[in-house]
Amino acid sequence: MPPRPLGVAMIGYEFMGRAHSNSWRNVDAFFDVPHFERRVIVGRDADRVEAAASQLGWPEWATDWREAIARDDVDIVDICAPGWLHAEIAIAALAAGKHVLVEKPLSNTLAESAAMVDAARAARLAGVQSMIGFNYRRVPALALARQLIADGRLGDVRQVRASYLQDWLTDAEAPMTWRLRRETAGSGSLGDIASHVIDQVMHLLGDTVTEVSGRLHTYTTERPGPDGPEAVTVDDAAWATLGLAGGAIASVEVSRVALGAKNSLRLEIYGSAGSLRFDLERLNELEFLDGNEPLQTQGFRRIVVTEPEHPYLSGWWPQGHVLGWEHSHTHQIRDFLLHIASGTAPEPSFESGLAVQQVLDAIEQSAASNGTIISI
Amino acid sequence: MPPRPLGVAMIGYEFMGRAHSNSWRNVDAFFDVPHFERRVIVGRDADRVEAAASQLGWPEWATDWREAIARDDVDIVDICAPGWLHAEIAIAALAAGKHVLVEKPLSNTLAESAAMVDAARAARLAGVQSMIGFNYRRVPALALARQLIADGRLGDVRQVRASYLQDWLTDAEAPMTWRLRRETAGSGSLGDIASHVIDQVMHLLGDTVTEVSGRLHTYTTERPGPDGPEAVTVDDAAWATLGLAGGAIASVEVSRVALGAKNSLRLEIYGSAGSLRFDLERLNELEFLDGNEPLQTQGFRRIVVTEPEHPYLSGWWPQGHVLGWEHSHTHQIRDFLLHIASGTAPEPSFESGLAVQQVLDAIEQSAASNGTIISI
Amino acid sequence: MPPRPLGVAMIGYEFMGRAHSNSWRNVDAFFDVPHFERRVIVGRDADRVEAAASQLGWPEWATDWREAIARDDVDIVDICAPGWLHAEIAIAALAAGKHVLVEKPLSNTLAESAAMVDAARAARLAGVQSMIGFNYRRVPALALARQLIADGRLGDVRQVRASYLQDWLTDAEAPMTWRLRRETAGSGSLGDIASHVIDQVMHLLGDTVTEVSGRLHTYTTERPGPDGPEAVTVDDAAWATLGLAGGAIASVEVSRVALGAKNSLRLEIYGSAGSLRFDLERLNELEFLDGNEPLQTQGFRRIVVTEPEHPYLSGWWPQGHVLGWEHSHTHQIRDFLLHIASGTAPEPSFESGLAVQQVLDAIEQSAASNGTIISI
Amino acid sequence: MPPRPLGVAMIGYEFMGRAHSNSWRNVDAFFDVPHFERRVIVGRDADRVEAAASQLGWPEWATDWREAIARDDVDIVDICAPGWLHAEIAIAALAAGKHVLVEKPLSNTLAESAAMVDAARAARLAGVQSMIGFNYRRVPALALARQLIADGRLGDVRQVRASYLQDWLTDAEAPMTWRLRRETAGSGSLGDIASHVIDQVMHLLGDTVTEVSGRLHTYTTERPGPDGPEAVTVDDAAWATLGLAGGAIASVEVSRVALGAKNSLRLEIYGSAGSLRFDLERLNELEFLDGNEPLQTQGFRRIVVTEPEHPYLSGWWPQGHVLGWEHSHTHQIRDFLLHIASGTAPEPSFESGLAVQQVLDAIEQSAASNGTIISI
Repeated sequence: MPPRPLGVAMIGYEFMGRAHSNSWRNVDAFFDVPHFERRVIVGRDADRVEAAASQLGWPEWATDWREAIARDDVDIVDICAPGWLHAEIAIAALAAGKHVLVEKPLSNTLAESAAMVDAARAARLAGVQSMIGFNYRRVPALALARQLIADGRLGDVRQVRASYLQDWLTDAEAPMTWRLRRETAGSGSLGDIASHVIDQVMHLLGDTVTEVSGRLHTYTTERPGPDGPEAVTVDDAAWATLGLAGGAIASVEVSRVALGAKNSLRLEIYGSAGSLRFDLERLNELEFLDGNEPLQTQGFRRIVVTEPEHPYLSGWWPQGHVLGWEHSHTHQIRDFLLHIASGTAPEPSFESGLAVQQVLDAIEQSAASNGTIISI
Repeated sequence: MPPRPLGVAMIGYEFMGRAHSNSWRNVDAFFDVPHFERRVIVGRDADRVEAAASQLGWPEWATDWREAIARDDVDIVDICAPGWLHAEIAIAALAAGKHVLVEKPLSNTLAESAAMVDAARAARLAGVQSMIGFNYRRVPALALARQLIADGRLGDVRQVRASYLQDWLTDAEAPMTWRLRRETAGSGSLGDIASHVIDQVMHLLGDTVTEVSGRLHTYTTERPGPDGPEAVTVDDAAWATLGLAGGAIASVEVSRVALGAKNSLRLEIYGSAGSLRFDLERLNELEFLDGNEPLQTQGFRRIVVTEPEHPYLSGWWPQGHVLGWEHSHTHQIRDFLLHIASGTAPEPSFESGLAVQQVLDAIEQSAASNGTIISI
Repeated sequence: MPPRPLGVAMIGYEFMGRAHSNSWRNVDAFFDVPHFERRVIVGRDADRVEAAASQLGWPEWATDWREAIARDDVDIVDICAPGWLHAEIAIAALAAGKHVLVEKPLSNTLAESAAMVDAARAARLAGVQSMIGFNYRRVPALALARQLIADGRLGDVRQVRASYLQDWLTDAEAPMTWRLRRETAGSGSLGDIASHVIDQVMHLLGDTVTEVSGRLHTYTTERPGPDGPEAVTVDDAAWATLGLAGGAIASVEVSRVALGAKNSLRLEIYGSAGSLRFDLERLNELEFLDGNEPLQTQGFRRIVVTEPEHPYLSGWWPQGHVLGWEHSHTHQIRDFLLHIASGTAPEPSFESGLAVQQVLDAIEQSAASNGTIISI
Repeated sequence: MPPRPLGVAMIGYEFMGRAHSNSWRNVDAFFDVPHFERRVIVGRDADRVEAAASQLGWPEWATDWREAIARDDVDIVDICAPGWLHAEIAIAALAAGKHVLVEKPLSNTLAESAAMVDAARAARLAGVQSMIGFNYRRVPALALARQLIADGRLGDVRQVRASYLQDWLTDAEAPMTWRLRRETAGSGSLGDIASHVIDQVMHLLGDTVTEVSGRLHTYTTERPGPDGPEAVTVDDAAWATLGLAGGAIASVEVSRVALGAKNSLRLEIYGSAGSLRFDLERLNELEFLDGNEPLQTQGFRRIVVTEPEHPYLSGWWPQGHVLGWEHSHTHQIRDFLLHIASGTAPEPSFESGLAVQQVLDAIEQSAASNGTIISI
């Protein structure tokens, strides 16, 4: 640890850049973390990054990420740039001895991700930490879910129903964007939101996916582009079943055309001794059924996850004062900083990010093979 | 017990007559009850009662209730006639040695009800049973609630929130009816639906009301009558707080103008060790919070009250096959028959019906006295 | 139509026999139907069928179904016997000119079902009607859902999420039964409950399934049998995706080990202009989102399906007085009788039953082929 | 407006000081507001205020609020000190020409509040603004509720059910605190949480309370104090009915012993043309029933209030990314700043704060008079 505050550089200033900046601005007001200072935000467009620095609370801005990661007063690099830049920046930053937090997906290709994992492993030996931003692991209700499962409250988990439904592509006349082109986006709902779901399944169960069957579908195959109608080359929706090493089977369903579902990541986990239900649209709540209760009083209980006894909550407000979506990012930054301070490896690691990508890749392969099960 | 099936006479064939007939038609298909036979249905309008007999499954019909209760082959009189007829019929039937079930309200006046209680007491000594039809006591979820409270799962009950909201008078142009005239209806929402709520509060807590503060209001004071605008002389909505002997305080709110509430009798019961919530629109569910659970996993659990372990459920279908509103009446008939067979007094007794009326009367008195608390 | 009441014979007296008997006992108290009379109930065990006749309200009982269907005073045969008897009885009854209602599944094999369809077609030409008991079509909320979709309120339906979760096999020590042996049960959760779900998908959308991918799983592969441990030879849970002719894709998931789900048939239907959600555990409610509403006030509305304006409700109680599970059977009998009276073919037909079986069969084929898509 | 950033001084650093500091730290990252700078935080305990300054992001700290409000570089004074200090600080600050935001309650006595109103009126004429912190007005769902009512979507509002239930005093052995002594806290649940509810009723309806009936109760009358058992001199729970000038009647119920209710401010508003329901524990949702819909599809719709079209939401995240409790404070600061910039008077004014206190006072009077209605 340097004998001065940890210096932070942020790469990117769009949606995720705003969310991460919010966390850097606030984390030490709520949690006891190592001393740090925001140093610089980096973006390609000088005007926009200057405005972002001012709005998001960064004292300096820059347009060259290489310069930023070369600075002696920068110890942490937080990468919120587009996915196709992740590998290059992360590998360079790790090589420069900087701790790296990278937004999901780890990268846009398996090959790049594998290289990032190699870089992360090497850096870790040198005490340089790395982490991927599956922020939903730090939603308190999901952190509580993980605890309950780890404590055996569900017994053997058998069946998981996992879905992530949105509706922003419902309108068939909505215009073409980079998110709907395979070459820029990699994939559609699969990479964007199924990735979160699959990370949750593996993380909550503490298990790995061994085989998958998948299906992809594009409901609106052509949309208005800048030069007339243009083919949509990514999926609107995806389905999969996942076999896990421990014997559980998980179903996955994601969509961008589920009209009325705004940001609904839902999980249902059925075990031999207990069950859980969760919906991200009500992220302060976890439903838990204890199968050891007498049937007379057995039922899903709605836990309002806002007690000081709950994960992360002691840092915030009194009970019943609910948290929002962005708080999961603040918890992520907190844990990242604590791991840096203690010299331990934070989770989710780059390896976790690669594992999710391997599952996504297998789903695509299966979908391209008429749904046949693919082993991983 | 007669050496032949118990004979049943039904007085009345409107809404409640239909509901009770349904129970008489079905109770022995689901429960082990004494042998009985439907004998006769009675109504003032010959054509209509004839049609009712045919539709509702009664082998005979009659227009004179006195003849019906005089029949040797009639052992049970089920009174679903209008409230102003209850006292006369019930007292005559009890005097004739017939077991009597009377729909709520017990009668339209305290004096009549007191006379009915006297008659019931005298008859009871002679082994003749009587009961008032607060059917919601036999909704399985509420019967379960009563058990949990009696078992001490709530500790000391402190605060009860009880409401019964309907919306059928929302339209200010809805026409005048006998239900909106004080001389025919007695009162408005107070007698019609607050009565159910008040019976529940006393029954669930096993306690009595000692003092009340009340308010009544009529939102639409004039409605189209047969001869032009006519004054509405009963309440559209009522509010009260009730002090109970054991120290609990209950709030009561009822309405016929709560747009969107269809038949929503809701109860929330907060104790020192547990809490309950219920809504008649979801009558197969009871929410229970066990305050002895660790805070980490404490929450209102939604019990789907359809297990064989739950009250009355072993008579019906497999778990998860939900019941409807009318089943509470069938349970009522079942218990009435079992008490007749065993020679024990069923609950709710006429005394219970009178106790509810005394509370309603005190609410009216308080409302007429600017809300001042009235002792009972 | 005979110049006398229609005579009804019931074959079977177990769970479905009890439910159908309840409907025959009550349907004409609530609905205006052709005059009918219950004649005879048939079962193989004389003692038990005699007791059933007494309890369920049948004036006669018999042990030979052939005699019952040969009776001149029997016009309708209601088959609630085990599935392996369906074909023989139904074909004989139709040949004898009796209208036939048969519980689902149509039969245990595709070949038998095809023969039943042939018999039904021939009989139909002679004015003899037939129907299969997918009773959930007559849950009022689902009948309303069908109306809304047919009226175009959902626009183009794209994505359906259909599941049916139960938990009665959660306990790995629960004993072996005939339902868990392939030779007696045909299949497990697939035939028992996925069949309902698949009928709903096709019925609600008015569409047919053209291809499927499926997976089956048995979590507990051995259970205590009468002679020691015995292999479970049917599925505990099943998953499928269905492609429909009109372009929608439906996911299906069913389970008998989803701890805490009692009888939870859930449907979510997402269209281009509206969406629907339903759960059989709250069968009086339908959630509907109208995508044509301004976003400011758009949301899933909870319709309490108890208004006289709603399907089947005008026969029952005032608004807000909720119905139970068994009422769907009563509606089914009502419609069956009305079709007999009008000489029109009721739905769901035997053809509908066969179509469901073909989908189930394709799911089994796909599951046996590693999930590969099977065309129908 | 000064030709430099507006300077802000904060008085107080406890719960509300933390919440307001969070808003000052973040408001300009999400909203376009006048340029401001945090100058100084003030508290009586030097060590604690120094720590608070560091943690909450204030560049300076001080122990004398008089010095702070005298500073030329301070334009805004945000008062989060205890209620008994509000009047003195606010009046002095306004006299010094500083814009004042004061947390609720306005003060601990009607007399002090009246003086504050006088000071605010005088200052307003000089362009100096003032505001009281009823932050729940800026919960987006409640701001939407206000819009819908103002737009006439509810027609004539008739009946309001308003409650605020917490459970932190459920344990009868919880120790004595200053909040349970009348001399330090003024009142119990009444002043603390009924105040929020009453402000909402008047604000949402745009109406004033003209008469009230009230009841107060203390369930646990003695608690362990530092020197042995000590009398609790404030209420644990309170009930009231409020008559409003426009003809609506509102019921109010608040409690600190409603076991399982964490921070549950609930509102139900029934009008002649529509209805609304809200629960602060699910503050991103508003339920709205449109009575002009056909009955067939009428129902409470759950609006997820996270669209850019919704109040305050365009500043935050994409749809479905839910907000937390503290965001209401950020919206409050935003609006306060915008009013300062435009030279217009923000709401809620000190007059609004006084009006709430007058209602609370009348409830106490009524409770002390056996519930008799008190006119205001």
